[in-house]
Amino acid sequence: MRIMAPGPVESPPEVLAAGSRQIPHHRTGEFRATLKDSLAALGRVLKTANPVVPIAASGTGAMEAIVTSLFSPSDTVLVTVCGNFSERWVNICKAFGVKVTRLDSDWGTAVDPARVAMELKNNPKIAGVLTTFSETSTGVENDIAAIGKAVRGTDAVLAVDGISGVGALPFYTDDWGVDALAVGSQKGLMLPPGLAFVALSAKARKRIETSTTPRFYLSLDSALKSLEGNLPDTPFTPAVSLIIQLRESLKVLEAEGIEKVWARIALLGSATRAAIRALGLKLLPAGNYSNVVTAVDCAGGPDPDSVVRSLREGYGISIIGGQGKLKGRIFRIGHVGHVDELDVLATIGALEMVLRRSGRDVKLGAGVAAAQEVFLKAKVGENA
Amino acid sequence: MRIMAPGPVESPPEVLAAGSRQIPHHRTGEFRATLKDSLAALGRVLKTANPVVPIAASGTGAMEAIVTSLFSPSDTVLVTVCGNFSERWVNICKAFGVKVTRLDSDWGTAVDPARVAMELKNNPKIAGVLTTFSETSTGVENDIAAIGKAVRGTDAVLAVDGISGVGALPFYTDDWGVDALAVGSQKGLMLPPGLAFVALSAKARKRIETSTTPRFYLSLDSALKSLEGNLPDTPFTPAVSLIIQLRESLKVLEAEGIEKVWARIALLGSATRAAIRALGLKLLPAGNYSNVVTAVDCAGGPDPDSVVRSLREGYGISIIGGQGKLKGRIFRIGHVGHVDELDVLATIGALEMVLRRSGRDVKLGAGVAAAQEVFLKAKVGENA
Repeated sequence: MRIMAPGPVESPPEVLAAGSRQIPHHRTGEFRATLKDSLAALGRVLKTANPVVPIAASGTGAMEAIVTSLFSPSDTVLVTVCGNFSERWVNICKAFGVKVTRLDSDWGTAVDPARVAMELKNNPKIAGVLTTFSETSTGVENDIAAIGKAVRGTDAVLAVDGISGVGALPFYTDDWGVDALAVGSQKGLMLPPGLAFVALSAKARKRIETSTTPRFYLSLDSALKSLEGNLPDTPFTPAVSLIIQLRESLKVLEAEGIEKVWARIALLGSATRAAIRALGLKLLPAGNYSNVVTAVDCAGGPDPDSVVRSLREGYGISIIGGQGKLKGRIFRIGHVGHVDELDVLATIGALEMVLRRSGRDVKLGAGVAAAQEVFLKAKVGENA
Repeated sequence: MRIMAPGPVESPPEVLAAGSRQIPHHRTGEFRATLKDSLAALGRVLKTANPVVPIAASGTGAMEAIVTSLFSPSDTVLVTVCGNFSERWVNICKAFGVKVTRLDSDWGTAVDPARVAMELKNNPKIAGVLTTFSETSTGVENDIAAIGKAVRGTDAVLAVDGISGVGALPFYTDDWGVDALAVGSQKGLMLPPGLAFVALSAKARKRIETSTTPRFYLSLDSALKSLEGNLPDTPFTPAVSLIIQLRESLKVLEAEGIEKVWARIALLGSATRAAIRALGLKLLPAGNYSNVVTAVDCAGGPDPDSVVRSLREGYGISIIGGQGKLKGRIFRIGHVGHVDELDVLATIGALEMVLRRSGRDVKLGAGVAAAQEVFLKAKVGENA
């Protein structure tokens, strides 16, 4: 089995080994010291000096925590919708009665920061901009730095779903002006799912004081209060084993160096795209490619769901198909987490065989060669 | 390190080993088959034929899921308050605007089922009775069978916080008429925390259709829908590693036989209480003892928090102090999960030494001997 999906991802052996440790009680100094170390390291990886709240939930729980803790039903927020996961922001706001102004982009296209600036200018009452860093459903990366510039200086807070990208792609929470960042454990952080985080700026924390949306388990107020003091705590029983695994995962990321992790993932993204093109297949996005996931547009091409099935059944590789309105139209290869160049070569090699066996006229090795070229070119500087 | 707290508890080696496996992708047949097996086994352990919904959250998330999915702000529910955790039902209802009628019992006393019946008779509009099986904060077990009889035949649904007791104490979800049962992973199920469940009767599922309380991540509607079909699924990314560990944990419980597990835990409870009494200490409850946790009333006795600290620092044993209004008044020894007679003897032995070192006049071995008597008496039948 090889997971080449945009999360959950493979975990490094250090993280897996930590999963088999007997956990300590969560109210002990031992556990709380581990939590403190983990959150400090996470802050370094997320490039933030703001408090980072852990939540025992999957990423959607972190998104709901942001919506319910920062906004009230009297508020209007601007949601940049460009795929299935940004649509989730809309659905959460709707569930809790927070009013939404949609800023739609075609699926496969990035959010235009100038349009965000325009909307904020036209509607100075907008309380928050809710956007998506790496839109997993389409393989597009949004320009959070530019969106952050549009939001900075307004009364609105910037909330970012960073679930599928942070830890793997360059991301500067504080420098980019991200006020509330939702993070999941099972992507760039290379953990099993079930643990989420929210990083909160002072501007975001200020909003929490006045929000009237009902909330309890996912309330960020009580979670923030629990972080105060010498050793952090949590309002409810935390996901202890995942936090222990997080400590190991962050050690692995920091040992490699987060900038080097970003460069590795970027290279895997470039190579995968080069391979897809060399195989005569089409990428879904026209640009603004996310380096954690490559979305292949199968309109007029192979049946994406049978490609997914054949890779899984024939070669034990988990990639995934489309979601929402892209179901049956695309397949997606993830290259995030504990993956390297050879995982990409293996996946492309298997894909070539799957395509050939499905009767497609594929030149065996052509995709692999294109990926190799990308890898070799990147090594030129290193080995000179 | 030895955890003798009422959860999180120690995990059996089979469960720990499963924590180090590379997880499969959650949308694969492989994972969904594991989920199906786990939920089926869980239903057997909970003695229910009703659907059991998994949630990536700690137990409080399951309680909130019940409140928000079953009740509306126009509803009034009856909450039986007898400790810190039953107070949580009140706080969740308050957060979401569900009206609460309190039925208070002294902390350390069990809920009187006759008073529940009386309240329901006097207020036929009560939409639900929210109660607590094993009240961890006081060491009291409530008579859910009797409360179930009081609720049966009325329009109200019975919601039970079973987090700290089910899997360890005799519990018959369906026979007792429990409509909504909240379960946590880190107590009787012997897993790390971060996974919760809700078992739902047809009567409870009917209520979900009309509830207007805002909810999204913890919504039971979407979770129930995801369970339909040949292989179950989840609306959001599940806590994959914990579900894989659950499969192992349930194998361990079913290999021992759940009735035998209940008998083992009951024996550990009896022995612990006998030891406490033999040491001249007082139990907090006057009766209705929960067999998963023994609460020791330290009024006029040793300082409970220094007992907790000395056991941890001197002997690596994690017991816990009091919560809420019992903080500084009691300490609590858990005997739930992967624990046996010798764990109890070790804990009592350490407790005796801690008490002696604190200057108390304790007859060394007296508590241990009392526990041994209980164990030997229980074996008479077996070895005859």
